Amino acid sequence: MNEELPDQIKGMDSLLYRQRHSAAHIMAEAVLEVFPEAKYAIGPPIENGFYYDFELPRPLTPEDLTELDRRMRESIKADKPFIKSTASKDEARRIFADQPYKQELIDGIDAPEVGICRHGDFTDLCGYPHVESTGKVGAFKLTSVAGAYWRGDEHNQMLQRIYGVMFPTQQELDEYLRRLEEAEKRDHRKLGRELDLFSFHEEYGPGLVYWHPKGARVRSIIEDFWRKEHFDNGYELVFTPHIGRADLWQTSGHLDFYAENMYSPMDIDGIDYYAKPMNCPFHIQIYKSQVRSYRELPLRLAELGTVYRYERSGVLHGLLRVRGFTQDDAHIFCRPDQLESEVVRTLEFVLFILRTFGFEEFEINVSTKPEKAVGRDEDWRTAEAALKRAVEAVGLKYGIDEGGGAFYGPKIDVHIKDALGRAWQCSTIQFDFNLPERFDVGFIGEDGREHRPYMVHRALLGSIERFFGTLIEHYGGAFPVWLAPVQATLIPIADRHNDYCRGVAEKLRQAGLRVEVDERSERMQAKIRDAQLKKVPYMLIAGDRDIEAGAVSVRTREGEDLGGVAVDAFIQRVTAEVAAK
Amino acid sequence: MNEELPDQIKGMDSLLYRQRHSAAHIMAEAVLEVFPEAKYAIGPPIENGFYYDFELPRPLTPEDLTELDRRMRESIKADKPFIKSTASKDEARRIFADQPYKQELIDGIDAPEVGICRHGDFTDLCGYPHVESTGKVGAFKLTSVAGAYWRGDEHNQMLQRIYGVMFPTQQELDEYLRRLEEAEKRDHRKLGRELDLFSFHEEYGPGLVYWHPKGARVRSIIEDFWRKEHFDNGYELVFTPHIGRADLWQTSGHLDFYAENMYSPMDIDGIDYYAKPMNCPFHIQIYKSQVRSYRELPLRLAELGTVYRYERSGVLHGLLRVRGFTQDDAHIFCRPDQLESEVVRTLEFVLFILRTFGFEEFEINVSTKPEKAVGRDEDWRTAEAALKRAVEAVGLKYGIDEGGGAFYGPKIDVHIKDALGRAWQCSTIQFDFNLPERFDVGFIGEDGREHRPYMVHRALLGSIERFFGTLIEHYGGAFPVWLAPVQATLIPIADRHNDYCRGVAEKLRQAGLRVEVDERSERMQAKIRDAQLKKVPYMLIAGDRDIEAGAVSVRTREGEDLGGVAVDAFIQRVTAEVAAK
Repeated sequence: MNEELPDQIKGMDSLLYRQRHSAAHIMAEAVLEVFPEAKYAIGPPIENGFYYDFELPRPLTPEDLTELDRRMRESIKADKPFIKSTASKDEARRIFADQPYKQELIDGIDAPEVGICRHGDFTDLCGYPHVESTGKVGAFKLTSVAGAYWRGDEHNQMLQRIYGVMFPTQQELDEYLRRLEEAEKRDHRKLGRELDLFSFHEEYGPGLVYWHPKGARVRSIIEDFWRKEHFDNGYELVFTPHIGRADLWQTSGHLDFYAENMYSPMDIDGIDYYAKPMNCPFHIQIYKSQVRSYRELPLRLAELGTVYRYERSGVLHGLLRVRGFTQDDAHIFCRPDQLESEVVRTLEFVLFILRTFGFEEFEINVSTKPEKAVGRDEDWRTAEAALKRAVEAVGLKYGIDEGGGAFYGPKIDVHIKDALGRAWQCSTIQFDFNLPERFDVGFIGEDGREHRPYMVHRALLGSIERFFGTLIEHYGGAFPVWLAPVQATLIPIADRHNDYCRGVAEKLRQAGLRVEVDERSERMQAKIRDAQLKKVPYMLIAGDRDIEAGAVSVRTREGEDLGGVAVDAFIQRVTAEVAAK
Repeated sequence: MNEELPDQIKGMDSLLYRQRHSAAHIMAEAVLEVFPEAKYAIGPPIENGFYYDFELPRPLTPEDLTELDRRMRESIKADKPFIKSTASKDEARRIFADQPYKQELIDGIDAPEVGICRHGDFTDLCGYPHVESTGKVGAFKLTSVAGAYWRGDEHNQMLQRIYGVMFPTQQELDEYLRRLEEAEKRDHRKLGRELDLFSFHEEYGPGLVYWHPKGARVRSIIEDFWRKEHFDNGYELVFTPHIGRADLWQTSGHLDFYAENMYSPMDIDGIDYYAKPMNCPFHIQIYKSQVRSYRELPLRLAELGTVYRYERSGVLHGLLRVRGFTQDDAHIFCRPDQLESEVVRTLEFVLFILRTFGFEEFEINVSTKPEKAVGRDEDWRTAEAALKRAVEAVGLKYGIDEGGGAFYGPKIDVHIKDALGRAWQCSTIQFDFNLPERFDVGFIGEDGREHRPYMVHRALLGSIERFFGTLIEHYGGAFPVWLAPVQATLIPIADRHNDYCRGVAEKLRQAGLRVEVDERSERMQAKIRDAQLKKVPYMLIAGDRDIEAGAVSVRTREGEDLGGVAVDAFIQRVTAEVAAK
């Protein structure tokens, strides 16, 4: 272990932290037994476990992991004590004479002495606490090996990172591994391929999503719903350009404080244009296109606005971290006296939308004024209070991230918990005391004088791409009926039932349902299995007896057999399901 | 007049052409009388009239036009003969000794002799035919003055261009001016401002459209309709990125033959990316994301895809010529045996959509193989024949633009005629023999072997921006009820009727209608006038008697008084109108 601790271990339970930390040392001990020439770098505890990075003479194989596991269990059985000490930096340099990464770490330590930790024959540079002895760690499993650059910098040496998971008990470990396996099955990148929802084409640009027909169908249902609810909830839709002149981004300040996330400029007639990383400056232009009266406020401008932001290729991850995405963005301009009700209204809207998509558990954080900030203290206080009271008003708990707000305003973040209990970043309600000043945004008050409105950025789903990724994993690809790209597959038992199935399909389509007919010359069982693999909610099987009865034999994707159902009754059932969402 | 004739005079009626041409000379005569120091440049006949460009000592005023008009009528009354002759270039240089633009024109003439035309004291360099004498021109009016660069090049001197219109008779001139006035009233840029539909913000980039709430509302109705009809007509929706690596545009060939219409590249991680000028290469990636069987064809991939194309700032024109626009794009991949029915189907779809938007007259052109072309002769013949038979199948006439096709395939263009009889570019059905080769697009045939599908690009509306501009002008901003951003304005007669109006508005909203309540403390007549100016289809006025009857007094924007109508009956009426489109 060394001095560089990742953020995620903050607040980790102290014993478990020490156990996982100690396990990393035990793993390094085993690696050095197998590969005496190994150079070891850093090995912190992380969420669910630990890792350690090594420079090794050859790539590790699954057999290596088995051997390392065996040796670690031996060390644990031997119950070797962890012995902590300190050493001067010179002394430490001698101890780690043949360990270049430790040398670099020692160079980076800004203190006369460094921590040393030994157990058995293994010695590490380490200033952090351990359990007393190797026997005191929890239940573990080595899970995988991945490449990792030294200090995360792609210009440095690529190391091999060995991951392990550790929990206090075998039972907890097993439960975790079961969930991990479930999570792998639900991996949206895997399901995206299997269900033909979307693709990436690295050769034409990594992090850029191609929505295939089935994925785009779900997206269009999400967007239709989103638009309808926004209209019904007092928002106005706008569409704005995807590019803007440098001047716009200069005035907005993005070229000062956000440039590293922006793509390089395009030259048009000798002038720099940038692909937009945000929609706000454009919405402000629409707001400012006429003099606004207090009577017009609140003005809520919403857009499904596609933005482009630079992300290093190393951090791109399926739909969750991309280089171009569509924000379900809106900007609310309101008077001071409308502030509180607007925030409550927005939060209620957030929860209504997220609940409709099947999410029931939320983690809410209110982030307050950081040290460096713009805007009047008074506005910060008002806004922070409004945010807190809003969360209380909707009856939810929240954490406070003191000083964690953006420099331009406080915010509420909403994470949603999925079916596996994992939290996903989602909605934001963010005040902005910066842009209204920079663009001199105003309204004429009842007093006939010009005032500055409050401006709130908000996104409910966050990014359509990321939200879709979350939905896929939450439902394991088995979208609820109202979202399913195909709601029912008609399965003729024999070729002579094809016509009937086509007729039923047509009838369902006219009722607004999304259906397919599987006319392939496969056996019925194979067709049922295929429809189940495609996670189609209903399989409608039709043979002679069904035709006679003007019905279909209905099976659900979960394998439930609903027996023969009249076509009209089926339409009623599904239509009701869709309406209920 | 000189040797440089603009395209638009091609095919102009011969006498009218000579009349307009002669009028340009008569105007130049008048200008030189008023400004003896004037330098005159060129003055061709154009559609509906003529113009002449001058370098003058000061900007022209409306009074100048009146004076020029008076002098022109004097010259016409004097019935001076036009006398044509020729002169050697040296002689011509002497005649136009103090006329630098004529000198440049003489330099540019590739012949030993040049044409000279005199009438009265006026002499021009001119090789084109005239009427016999000034008295033989038609009815005219000088209409406007505008700046124009010499030879259209912004690096040259800016001249003053005086426009005149001319028709054979005063009656035809009056009719034309009446239509012109009507067209000005319907100018989408003017209505765009007045009805608060959209804006441009030159300072942040010319040619980039900001859709305001009311415009965006119409757009979202258009898009909803478009999506629904595409789903119902066997299309599949996709969404694709707005940028792609240079490699994509290299393979597609766009960097070879379309680069001047593309924006300059953005640099991401040292690699060039381009904003997409077209969606095709992306749709091809989706097609190619799996092996396609003959059973899957036709595959029709549709996208409301926003593309960015460079246009010189001088040619930008409201919504009609912009730098970023959303194509209602689709690509059809089909087997040879599906070709003909697909083209017919597509054309029928085009006409259905355009008729729904209220267009009834179409100009159709089939463009055939140009000299430089890719693709097999056989494919060109098959495709051209399919296009022609398709137009015949839908019972429409068409013109043939021999050799006018793109190098990669023949096409059908559809222009729509608007309420004033003006033609607007709209739909295209375009074959492509190029991209399937370049991207090696294939499908597995019934024979188990790989085949090349036909690929057809098609856009029904063309560009959402331009189509919206067309719609605005066609309807003069008075959108039909199904498209109107606000369908009804509730007008309380006095403040005590506000509550009732709000209640009715809520009821209408729940029935899916778009309504506003005008609660301003204005008089009823002022509110009615405002709603009419906003082109709201229905004004619903409510006073004591209406409330008693559970009704509203309905007026249309055309001024028709429908009297008291029960709220439910009004809902029924409008809902039926919307459904009927």
